[in-house]
Amino acid sequence: MIRNLRRAVRRAYRRKVDLSHPARSPLGSAVVNCVGYAGGKRQSGHCPPDEALRRVRKENRADSDSNGFVWIGLHEPTHEEFASVAELFELHPLAVADAVDEHRRPKVVPYDDILLAVFKTVGYAGHDEVVESGEITVIIGRDFVITIRSGRYGSLGPLREALEAMPDQLAKGPSSVLHAIADFVVDEYVVVADAVEEDIEVVESAVFSERAGRGEAGRNDAARVYQLKRELLEFKRATTPLSRPLEALATQPSPLIAPAIRPYFRDVTDHLARAGEQISGYDALLDSILQAHLAQMTVEQNESMRRITAWAAIVAVPTMVCGVYGMNFDHMPELRSVYGYPAVLTVIVVACVVIHRGFRRNGWL
Amino acid sequence: MIRNLRRAVRRAYRRKVDLSHPARSPLGSAVVNCVGYAGGKRQSGHCPPDEALRRVRKENRADSDSNGFVWIGLHEPTHEEFASVAELFELHPLAVADAVDEHRRPKVVPYDDILLAVFKTVGYAGHDEVVESGEITVIIGRDFVITIRSGRYGSLGPLREALEAMPDQLAKGPSSVLHAIADFVVDEYVVVADAVEEDIEVVESAVFSERAGRGEAGRNDAARVYQLKRELLEFKRATTPLSRPLEALATQPSPLIAPAIRPYFRDVTDHLARAGEQISGYDALLDSILQAHLAQMTVEQNESMRRITAWAAIVAVPTMVCGVYGMNFDHMPELRSVYGYPAVLTVIVVACVVIHRGFRRNGWL
Amino acid sequence: MIRNLRRAVRRAYRRKVDLSHPARSPLGSAVVNCVGYAGGKRQSGHCPPDEALRRVRKENRADSDSNGFVWIGLHEPTHEEFASVAELFELHPLAVADAVDEHRRPKVVPYDDILLAVFKTVGYAGHDEVVESGEITVIIGRDFVITIRSGRYGSLGPLREALEAMPDQLAKGPSSVLHAIADFVVDEYVVVADAVEEDIEVVESAVFSERAGRGEAGRNDAARVYQLKRELLEFKRATTPLSRPLEALATQPSPLIAPAIRPYFRDVTDHLARAGEQISGYDALLDSILQAHLAQMTVEQNESMRRITAWAAIVAVPTMVCGVYGMNFDHMPELRSVYGYPAVLTVIVVACVVIHRGFRRNGWL
Amino acid sequence: MIRNLRRAVRRAYRRKVDLSHPARSPLGSAVVNCVGYAGGKRQSGHCPPDEALRRVRKENRADSDSNGFVWIGLHEPTHEEFASVAELFELHPLAVADAVDEHRRPKVVPYDDILLAVFKTVGYAGHDEVVESGEITVIIGRDFVITIRSGRYGSLGPLREALEAMPDQLAKGPSSVLHAIADFVVDEYVVVADAVEEDIEVVESAVFSERAGRGEAGRNDAARVYQLKRELLEFKRATTPLSRPLEALATQPSPLIAPAIRPYFRDVTDHLARAGEQISGYDALLDSILQAHLAQMTVEQNESMRRITAWAAIVAVPTMVCGVYGMNFDHMPELRSVYGYPAVLTVIVVACVVIHRGFRRNGWL
Amino acid sequence: MIRNLRRAVRRAYRRKVDLSHPARSPLGSAVVNCVGYAGGKRQSGHCPPDEALRRVRKENRADSDSNGFVWIGLHEPTHEEFASVAELFELHPLAVADAVDEHRRPKVVPYDDILLAVFKTVGYAGHDEVVESGEITVIIGRDFVITIRSGRYGSLGPLREALEAMPDQLAKGPSSVLHAIADFVVDEYVVVADAVEEDIEVVESAVFSERAGRGEAGRNDAARVYQLKRELLEFKRATTPLSRPLEALATQPSPLIAPAIRPYFRDVTDHLARAGEQISGYDALLDSILQAHLAQMTVEQNESMRRITAWAAIVAVPTMVCGVYGMNFDHMPELRSVYGYPAVLTVIVVACVVIHRGFRRNGWL
Repeated sequence: MIRNLRRAVRRAYRRKVDLSHPARSPLGSAVVNCVGYAGGKRQSGHCPPDEALRRVRKENRADSDSNGFVWIGLHEPTHEEFASVAELFELHPLAVADAVDEHRRPKVVPYDDILLAVFKTVGYAGHDEVVESGEITVIIGRDFVITIRSGRYGSLGPLREALEAMPDQLAKGPSSVLHAIADFVVDEYVVVADAVEEDIEVVESAVFSERAGRGEAGRNDAARVYQLKRELLEFKRATTPLSRPLEALATQPSPLIAPAIRPYFRDVTDHLARAGEQISGYDALLDSILQAHLAQMTVEQNESMRRITAWAAIVAVPTMVCGVYGMNFDHMPELRSVYGYPAVLTVIVVACVVIHRGFRRNGWL
Repeated sequence: MIRNLRRAVRRAYRRKVDLSHPARSPLGSAVVNCVGYAGGKRQSGHCPPDEALRRVRKENRADSDSNGFVWIGLHEPTHEEFASVAELFELHPLAVADAVDEHRRPKVVPYDDILLAVFKTVGYAGHDEVVESGEITVIIGRDFVITIRSGRYGSLGPLREALEAMPDQLAKGPSSVLHAIADFVVDEYVVVADAVEEDIEVVESAVFSERAGRGEAGRNDAARVYQLKRELLEFKRATTPLSRPLEALATQPSPLIAPAIRPYFRDVTDHLARAGEQISGYDALLDSILQAHLAQMTVEQNESMRRITAWAAIVAVPTMVCGVYGMNFDHMPELRSVYGYPAVLTVIVVACVVIHRGFRRNGWL
Repeated sequence: MIRNLRRAVRRAYRRKVDLSHPARSPLGSAVVNCVGYAGGKRQSGHCPPDEALRRVRKENRADSDSNGFVWIGLHEPTHEEFASVAELFELHPLAVADAVDEHRRPKVVPYDDILLAVFKTVGYAGHDEVVESGEITVIIGRDFVITIRSGRYGSLGPLREALEAMPDQLAKGPSSVLHAIADFVVDEYVVVADAVEEDIEVVESAVFSERAGRGEAGRNDAARVYQLKRELLEFKRATTPLSRPLEALATQPSPLIAPAIRPYFRDVTDHLARAGEQISGYDALLDSILQAHLAQMTVEQNESMRRITAWAAIVAVPTMVCGVYGMNFDHMPELRSVYGYPAVLTVIVVACVVIHRGFRRNGWL
Repeated sequence: MIRNLRRAVRRAYRRKVDLSHPARSPLGSAVVNCVGYAGGKRQSGHCPPDEALRRVRKENRADSDSNGFVWIGLHEPTHEEFASVAELFELHPLAVADAVDEHRRPKVVPYDDILLAVFKTVGYAGHDEVVESGEITVIIGRDFVITIRSGRYGSLGPLREALEAMPDQLAKGPSSVLHAIADFVVDEYVVVADAVEEDIEVVESAVFSERAGRGEAGRNDAARVYQLKRELLEFKRATTPLSRPLEALATQPSPLIAPAIRPYFRDVTDHLARAGEQISGYDALLDSILQAHLAQMTVEQNESMRRITAWAAIVAVPTMVCGVYGMNFDHMPELRSVYGYPAVLTVIVVACVVIHRGFRRNGWL
Repeated sequence: MIRNLRRAVRRAYRRKVDLSHPARSPLGSAVVNCVGYAGGKRQSGHCPPDEALRRVRKENRADSDSNGFVWIGLHEPTHEEFASVAELFELHPLAVADAVDEHRRPKVVPYDDILLAVFKTVGYAGHDEVVESGEITVIIGRDFVITIRSGRYGSLGPLREALEAMPDQLAKGPSSVLHAIADFVVDEYVVVADAVEEDIEVVESAVFSERAGRGEAGRNDAARVYQLKRELLEFKRATTPLSRPLEALATQPSPLIAPAIRPYFRDVTDHLARAGEQISGYDALLDSILQAHLAQMTVEQNESMRRITAWAAIVAVPTMVCGVYGMNFDHMPELRSVYGYPAVLTVIVVACVVIHRGFRRNGWL
């Protein structure tokens, strides 16, 4: 069931159909969606946030097991656009700042009676640029969920539809939405980590191939390894800060997290830990690749050096002999002999062959 | 006794006779085995899981010390095949997902009234590929054990037979099976870690031999070290996540773990720690090998360089002298002298010998 | 709101208008400012510290919700100048030493009934010298705040004005000033960390460019990487010691920190953690740059080596052939032939071309 | 006192007189010794273990302060030989396995009412092989001590004699023996760590000497550093697992450890920590040696390279000039001049001297 | 005040006037001093330890606020010399061993009713050898302080005088002496750490200068970096073990530490932490220096290589041309032409110039 959710969502995610979401217009430019849920079921029609909240609260008073809530989805709201929402739900000023600011750290922090989570979404954009970030902020209260998305990736539309197909889960209240989003984001991490593994394999086979270090590509091997390291750093900064607070959600009782949802957070923590272990493992591997690459290049250099030396030694023989018989002394008896020239040529060839064999035998050639 | 178990099992394991286990057919394709145990003794005959569970529960009600349980063995069940088992034992949906999903992290997690453990099995497939993974999932409840195996290695048939030969152990209930499997898996880690040690010794003797870095093999030394590092990473990912939860089983009371079994888990933890220490030690050693290899190659390069320089200097002498007397000036008195030629030859030979000795003395040749 | 504070302050900070602050003269050379606040509002006029303190205490006795306090700003006071202030507020002798000494570690320490915080301020002075330090010491008591500043950067004038524009915040008492300063300092860290990121990008593009390692600049690439590492170390020493005590302020109740201010400190801690993660990430990146740079240089060296070898082999052909026909033997039939010379020239050219093509094909040229 | 014990023991240890211990024969092949102690005094004569245990228990019942115990010493017992001892003292089956198995991890673990400790002994066998391991297992119960030794080193005979000379210590019961053995083993670690320091100094002076990297020895510098690192790893695996359980013995109350013995364990922990710090310090130093060695070799290579270049440039001058005047043109007026030859020789010599001086000045020669 | 103490002491320390301390003779060779203090004031005259102790205890009984104590200073006592002191103050045998043994680890350990601290003193002996160690052992009891000093540095005479000038501090009892010594020792660490920083700057400017790696000095750059690393290791071993126990003194109540002294220990801990951070920062910097040095040397090697190649190519032109016209063929029409010689010379010069420019342009020359 929860797996099916992921699969459904992921497929949709691949298509990347989000920015033109039809729900964008009716409620102003930043509010993508605003729906009430009660007892796990979606209430009919879009309506302004205050109206939806009023309806849900009435329902909750009537039926204490309803766990009804309003889910407002925003996309890159400005300070002004968010101000009215913040006022409606009486958010703490720091939570407001946390929700709207750019360049935030991923985190899960409790404020008086709400819980604010910031997630970095990562996408895999081919071998050129592995990791790219957007942000999803989730604020849950007792009877509302606010989701704020920025960046091109990570549309929550398909996720909302998948969740609506599981009324049992939605009936557990706002924390089920927080879990669904955390699960969705963390699952992407696992996908990207696997993609990074493939990239590493490509680099490996380039670096350890026979023609490694030759030509244009060879000169860039080290740069590619570095590029991967840099992306892993970016990736690590998106994932590491989440592990402690997510574990806290999974293990410590909190009034905002339904007890039936808590084991689901342990599952998310587990996936996050897996991605984290992969990342730090790859990071160490990349260091080793560089190190091994360097050693290998040095070995090859040694070979070139030995080969130069050997050929220089072989060429030195005719040079020296010809030099001697190129001197212009009047009295050089060998020069007068009929057999001098062929004898010298023979000596040169034989000496060269002997030296060549010697170098062959000790592995220099 | 527990050691004998291991020995018996390991020998069987070496033979790798598992996929064609005769128990596979009677109970459908995925269910390899389904047997009830009471008071440590195997109940007669195979029967469907629900029937076996009914019988065991009846027995347990009759004799509260019986600790009877049903042990169902599955091999790579599909979602559908597992669904009926999950329903029979009323498993938590997340536990079901954990049991059937691919690419899981090793773990030991409690759900309401069951305990789920995922182990990665590793095998040693010769020097080419050291580490290969399968998975064993164990779910224990108050009166049942479900084991799910995937991959080619790690048949549990021999282990089951060995356990059945120790009724005292089996009489302690389901946790005795969990321990036997954990012990079996972790013991394999120790065996593989020792095998990795041998591989490292092979690499060491290649890297530090006199002919290191020469020929085809020499070019691959660094690649082999890297290959070992990569496998250790894989190995680490199989073992590290287990250490904390296994230690918890050994030290914290749990209703599903019989108190008499708890010290046995401490023993398993100890073996796991040993394998873990070996692995991280080898990992560091491999870094040092690369580092030392690089230093050694550089030293050798220096030697080659010095040797080239020395020979170039020696060859420069006849080249220069012959060059001088190869000039075509009309007035070069030496050329006319009868003793010119032998004198020049003597000068050249003496100069070369002197220079050669000089280089010998300062260690360049 | 708190963000607006930062923005206002930062803009002022950029202008660096501090040393000539007009408030410097009236109260002696070191006392830059001395103002009383009650109920978040500034009391009229400058007055000597003892007078201001007396007035505030009277006010606090009258209205227990007033949270009035005196804020004294000092700039590099001498021991003597600080002695009178210390006496007035009955500071612990160790706190006095901590406040006036040079070369202190950043810290937040409680003394009997005061809290002393030492912050290192960092400034970004262009690409030449990234990090430069001043110090701000803050001492808060029940009804006073003492701020001591040293170094050229980090004037607190604009910050004071910005705070005075937020009477609600000031009305929470002395801890609001401590927070404002901590927030201001830590925000600078984030700015500088981002600036360092830009520097790293500059170094990256220099190191991985095609002409890396050539000419004057190339020789300094490694030195620049090292320079950045050194500055990060300095930066780390300014930030790391703060994280634990700031987290303590955010999570542990303290009589000097108003409960409404505590979540604000969590916000500061979060920003500090972000800067800290950036720094240690960059630190690791710089190591990798050096490592990759080295590997790349070695690859290039290999290429040069192969190219030398190839050209030396090509040049060896005419040298040997010409050497042979430069010998002075009487009986060398080729020398007498009319076609000898053109034949030899042809042989030389053909041999050179063939060898050249061979090297081209195996990638040496 | 405790120091004197060490000294006495260590001296004996140096002599390595153990395998032919006379106590071996009387009680079967594996039992080296079996003596009862009461009130710190040795009871007369050897006798079978069951008889000795009966006597001691009688004594303890008579005098509750007697702290009497039987000390059985075994040397590499087989499973069968140990079985009777295990039965007599009613040992837990896992403790039996732990006591007899090979390849165990050092540890201190409590079983129901006994404490089992496994120590690795290390010896320093000259510069060739620094670290060599044996094992000592100690099992203490309320009124017995079982020591099991394997390997050539670490005879406990002298230690037993030294302890018997300190009846006060023995009178504190079985834990005094455990301490004496722990102290003895850990003290050896300190001795070996100091010996390793000397080895490192030898390597240092080889690596940083003027003739470093030359000749046969030079080629092995890196291999020697690696060899030391490998031995430190072995050493670390012997010492690290002990630190936590020994600290637990020193700080946590345990019914088997006499309170008066506990501070002595803190002393042992302290020595172990010292050895551990030394080891990890040396480990880091060896990395730095390799690193520095590499840098130094590269510097030297640079020098060789510059020197080759300089000499090649100097030799190029006469080669070119002589080449010119070796040409056979009919119309070369210089060749006809009487002063041509001496003039050319002068030009060559002057040019060479000038170039040589130039290279001297810029440090290439 | 506490700062003034440091300054006074440090100045004296610089003079290094200790071994000939006049107090050495009167009380036997090892006892340097023995004085009683009561209410912070020094009691008149030297007297034997037992007499002094008797007097102080009498005083303490009379006035419970007196906090009187005896301070005995020893210098490298033998076992025998220390035995009588140990007996007088009824020290634990392990404390005695700890006090007299050589090669101890720095530590602060409590024994029954005393506290024993071992400090390593470090001195800065110029650039040749940065770190040198002595030891100060302090034992404090309820009414006595024993200080034992070994090594040439670290005389406690001036410190005693400075303390006697602060009777308020002394009146807090024996822990005031322990603090003064800890403060004194740790302050030296800060001084030495700053001195090490200067050494690192010297190494930096040597390694990154333009003539780095040339001549005798260049060959030793790596060795110097290593030397500094080794000294930092020594330094770290002196400081690291102290941080935990000193922090314990600062934060945990202890009957032997006067409550008014505890904040002073926090100050010491803070200084120790600063020195520790500096040391580990420098340690990492030295690694980076080596790494950067290596990269820089490789870059320079590349340049040399390119320059050799370029010059070899230039020289190859005249060599080949002259070789051709040095051949002795009868039919070489160019040789007969009047313009042959000047034409060939022109061709050679032009070719060389063109090639030279080409290499200039692509940065090889």
